[in-house]
Amino acid sequence: MNDGFQVPGRSAPIPPATRARVLISCPDRPGIVAAVSDFLYKNGANIVQSDQHSVDADGGLFFMRVEFDLANLPLRLPDLQQQFGQLADRFDMDWTVHQANVPKRIAVFVSKEEHCLQELLWQWEIGDLFADITAIISNHDNAADVARVFNIPFHHVPVSAADKSKAEATQWEILKDNVDLIVLARYMQILSHDFVDQFPNQIINIHHSFLPAFVGQNPYGRAYERGVKLIGATAHYVTADLDAGPIIEQDVQRVSHRDEVMDLKRIGRHVERTVLARAVKWHVEDRILVHGNKTIVFL
Amino acid sequence: MNDGFQVPGRSAPIPPATRARVLISCPDRPGIVAAVSDFLYKNGANIVQSDQHSVDADGGLFFMRVEFDLANLPLRLPDLQQQFGQLADRFDMDWTVHQANVPKRIAVFVSKEEHCLQELLWQWEIGDLFADITAIISNHDNAADVARVFNIPFHHVPVSAADKSKAEATQWEILKDNVDLIVLARYMQILSHDFVDQFPNQIINIHHSFLPAFVGQNPYGRAYERGVKLIGATAHYVTADLDAGPIIEQDVQRVSHRDEVMDLKRIGRHVERTVLARAVKWHVEDRILVHGNKTIVFL
Amino acid sequence: MNDGFQVPGRSAPIPPATRARVLISCPDRPGIVAAVSDFLYKNGANIVQSDQHSVDADGGLFFMRVEFDLANLPLRLPDLQQQFGQLADRFDMDWTVHQANVPKRIAVFVSKEEHCLQELLWQWEIGDLFADITAIISNHDNAADVARVFNIPFHHVPVSAADKSKAEATQWEILKDNVDLIVLARYMQILSHDFVDQFPNQIINIHHSFLPAFVGQNPYGRAYERGVKLIGATAHYVTADLDAGPIIEQDVQRVSHRDEVMDLKRIGRHVERTVLARAVKWHVEDRILVHGNKTIVFL
Amino acid sequence: MNDGFQVPGRSAPIPPATRARVLISCPDRPGIVAAVSDFLYKNGANIVQSDQHSVDADGGLFFMRVEFDLANLPLRLPDLQQQFGQLADRFDMDWTVHQANVPKRIAVFVSKEEHCLQELLWQWEIGDLFADITAIISNHDNAADVARVFNIPFHHVPVSAADKSKAEATQWEILKDNVDLIVLARYMQILSHDFVDQFPNQIINIHHSFLPAFVGQNPYGRAYERGVKLIGATAHYVTADLDAGPIIEQDVQRVSHRDEVMDLKRIGRHVERTVLARAVKWHVEDRILVHGNKTIVFL
Repeated sequence: MNDGFQVPGRSAPIPPATRARVLISCPDRPGIVAAVSDFLYKNGANIVQSDQHSVDADGGLFFMRVEFDLANLPLRLPDLQQQFGQLADRFDMDWTVHQANVPKRIAVFVSKEEHCLQELLWQWEIGDLFADITAIISNHDNAADVARVFNIPFHHVPVSAADKSKAEATQWEILKDNVDLIVLARYMQILSHDFVDQFPNQIINIHHSFLPAFVGQNPYGRAYERGVKLIGATAHYVTADLDAGPIIEQDVQRVSHRDEVMDLKRIGRHVERTVLARAVKWHVEDRILVHGNKTIVFL
Repeated sequence: MNDGFQVPGRSAPIPPATRARVLISCPDRPGIVAAVSDFLYKNGANIVQSDQHSVDADGGLFFMRVEFDLANLPLRLPDLQQQFGQLADRFDMDWTVHQANVPKRIAVFVSKEEHCLQELLWQWEIGDLFADITAIISNHDNAADVARVFNIPFHHVPVSAADKSKAEATQWEILKDNVDLIVLARYMQILSHDFVDQFPNQIINIHHSFLPAFVGQNPYGRAYERGVKLIGATAHYVTADLDAGPIIEQDVQRVSHRDEVMDLKRIGRHVERTVLARAVKWHVEDRILVHGNKTIVFL
Repeated sequence: MNDGFQVPGRSAPIPPATRARVLISCPDRPGIVAAVSDFLYKNGANIVQSDQHSVDADGGLFFMRVEFDLANLPLRLPDLQQQFGQLADRFDMDWTVHQANVPKRIAVFVSKEEHCLQELLWQWEIGDLFADITAIISNHDNAADVARVFNIPFHHVPVSAADKSKAEATQWEILKDNVDLIVLARYMQILSHDFVDQFPNQIINIHHSFLPAFVGQNPYGRAYERGVKLIGATAHYVTADLDAGPIIEQDVQRVSHRDEVMDLKRIGRHVERTVLARAVKWHVEDRILVHGNKTIVFL
Repeated sequence: MNDGFQVPGRSAPIPPATRARVLISCPDRPGIVAAVSDFLYKNGANIVQSDQHSVDADGGLFFMRVEFDLANLPLRLPDLQQQFGQLADRFDMDWTVHQANVPKRIAVFVSKEEHCLQELLWQWEIGDLFADITAIISNHDNAADVARVFNIPFHHVPVSAADKSKAEATQWEILKDNVDLIVLARYMQILSHDFVDQFPNQIINIHHSFLPAFVGQNPYGRAYERGVKLIGATAHYVTADLDAGPIIEQDVQRVSHRDEVMDLKRIGRHVERTVLARAVKWHVEDRILVHGNKTIVFL
């Protein structure tokens, strides 16, 4: 399985050039697995990992992720996609194919707190996160330093409370046709519906609470007031409905009566960065399918 | 520390007859620890464990739990309490003293689901829960079997949706002057304010969600709908405000897209019984102090 | 997916009579998934869940678990197995097929401590563990009470330190042709190699430590001496090599300097019963494949 | 409790100049708590937190940590220490006093892998770790870059397999009289007994396994071979006996059959840095007392 080559100083192998992943959603009916695996076999592909999931909702839905190796993949992919399209039509599939060794382009949005950004950069540098971080965008300027250290373009885009559209226009200029995933790494501004609509299931936010508890502002202060014994964080895709998008990952940490709000924030930072980094890693590895307001995560 | 004696078939020692615990809440000011420890020393007591906590709220509050050994404790306790009362007045203390080897009397309320009840009985039988379980009260009759096996009085008290007062009157007759703690072990009826007021910080409920998420009915169904990645349970003291009382303990378990509502319930049962059993154990060991809507748990 | 029917008082559905699971181990090569899924499709089966795993060891090995539904399964199974045998020969497969609604027959071995036995009985009674518990065998007689409550045959088989063969002969008489899984639920006797050889990958033991730490006797005492901050338990298949068989599941619980050996045992009991119950559930659901000294667990 | 002042850009308050901590170990006997708290009260100190622990071993031992506030502490400390020495003699105490706002000087030893170093630097920069990091010492040169970013003196001290004494002499020159704690943040060289003896309970190592499992070299490779289901890390004080010093903290992370050795290393890095950072934080906050080969950690 470890057939990618190893870059000096990186811990993880770059995925081999022969590897691709196909993600499928379609109405559930017999024969899908047989059709897909037969198609791949006849085209000379070797299935490396295959996961599936059925839900009863909406008359029965089927979700599948297949990871496969195929010699000369980059050359053969256009033809393969065309052929697969015919099979897909037969089963009424929504589907995408992803070359595993083409890094996804990530733009990270951040405000004053840098811990989530730093975790992503650290995992990227060490090779745990296979992606291109193409831009860091902030409404503050403090992250410019860390951007410089990691040699990543930094864009200071102040946001006016009165008119956010100007900031979003600037962000849009930076991002358009140039990004596969936007990560809100403790970005404390609310994006407009129009902006969010441009990036369906392509914006991941980290919310600093165990959603749906403490939706909205100041979750740690409210967790302290309520006297909870665990605090958490939630990574989710951003939708027009604030803090209500499909949850990708959550985790918690134990706290006690000794922990003041400041301690909750400190402990929470560790949960936040861990949870966000997992969600981003799963996204760039094409492990997440969205079904309505839920995610299917094939690990 | 292991100076209690061991009953055959029980795993844990019964606390020694010499041991007591004092719980203190008072305005914070210098000299409290010195006064309390000096008092105990001069009376020949040996401090076994001592914990304290200060909060800034309300001008500064101080909470303390001291566990001590004293020869001939049962004989000397009345006199000791009188003397301690004078010290307590000086510091404006709320305080209670508890003999460690006097088991608290517990009444368990249960409805159809018996897993929380069974966990308490199991921990009690094996000696992990030092208490007397004096009554099992249910609005259904299925728990009669397990009550018989464990030789505990069972009371079937049906609850009419139209008039709960009759049921509560019956429950009150069973309990009055005969109980130190009521445990709602998946009891699916809401107690009246009047009933709750009779037992301040003496009723522990297990709520089958990670409060404050999914307050109210059907938390697992709603957790499923929301697509959360962890489910939880919360043990809390019951107050007039439903599901809003002081939280004693919480825990969670990981779930995935593969888990249906039925699986969430199954996984949740394990969290529920574990969390409730911890909270009850801490209560009967006098480890919990209540401050407003929060708990201080000295472990 | 919830197409089994619900027995009153049971929490989980009995698997539907149409459902089967096939477990496959074979040399890795292209076309296996396609062949298996095509075979099932052409025979009218619907794949409900499919998992696979490849390892590079030994020239490449492939492991697969497929859960499928097929109308009239009990009638058609003999024929289906015969046909599948031809496919299996082609790929040099080791394979087994299991009807999901045929409960596996479990014999539980226990010594003095009953907590693991009780957990299994509780999960069985509530319907979380779909199996037949056909015998409880103990070298002590205290578990006779709980066996009677649950109406399960109890066999008191004392073990002489001088000659264990007599006890094993008695156990063998009870079990032969009458058991699919033996669970050592804190059974404190070592089984002979001959006995173990009769039940390859059919005996699950719970070891009360986080293996390979504290192999052998008195793990809690040794954990206390070493001052560890977490204690654990390990469920594993029993092999001739003591405490060294394939690990199925492990878990841990946090402890502190305040915990004496007796506390480690108390806390450990909860880990032990949870870990063992998970392993047994996975086994009876045909989720475990063994590869050398390791397990592949398809969840 | 939040009476320290806040430095811009730092998340945690610097401890107030009035605060000190006293750590006590002595034979157990009545009156210790009373004597210590009375002493502090009469000297005008206010106890902020107090923890104690008794062990039966060696005829009974008593351990205590008291955190207190005292006006003009820096001026009054010499006199206070002298007086406390008399009380300490009476109870045969080993004791130390620590001014909370005097940062401990930390030297970090590192080899090629930088993740533990980076975690410490990140927590230090953000204010979660109140200390002075005075030196980074490595037998490789790659950490020079991160040292420069954080503006910390970097010392490249190559270690010859044939003769380690020269390297240790160089390290000693850098450290002597200039360090309170040495952190081995994945430093892959074994220190000599002589070197270790200079820093009793002042060297913290992170071992990349759940000790005592996989003592020694290549723990992840061995964990993979054994097929464990959880991997862990252990922070411990370094003693002459390799990997056998007092354990401060441990944690684990779940792995599965899908994880190759490389994945175990990746997952393990997160456990390692978290566990080490906790241990270092507890040390610099004077929360750890050592008793023989165990630690008492007052949280």
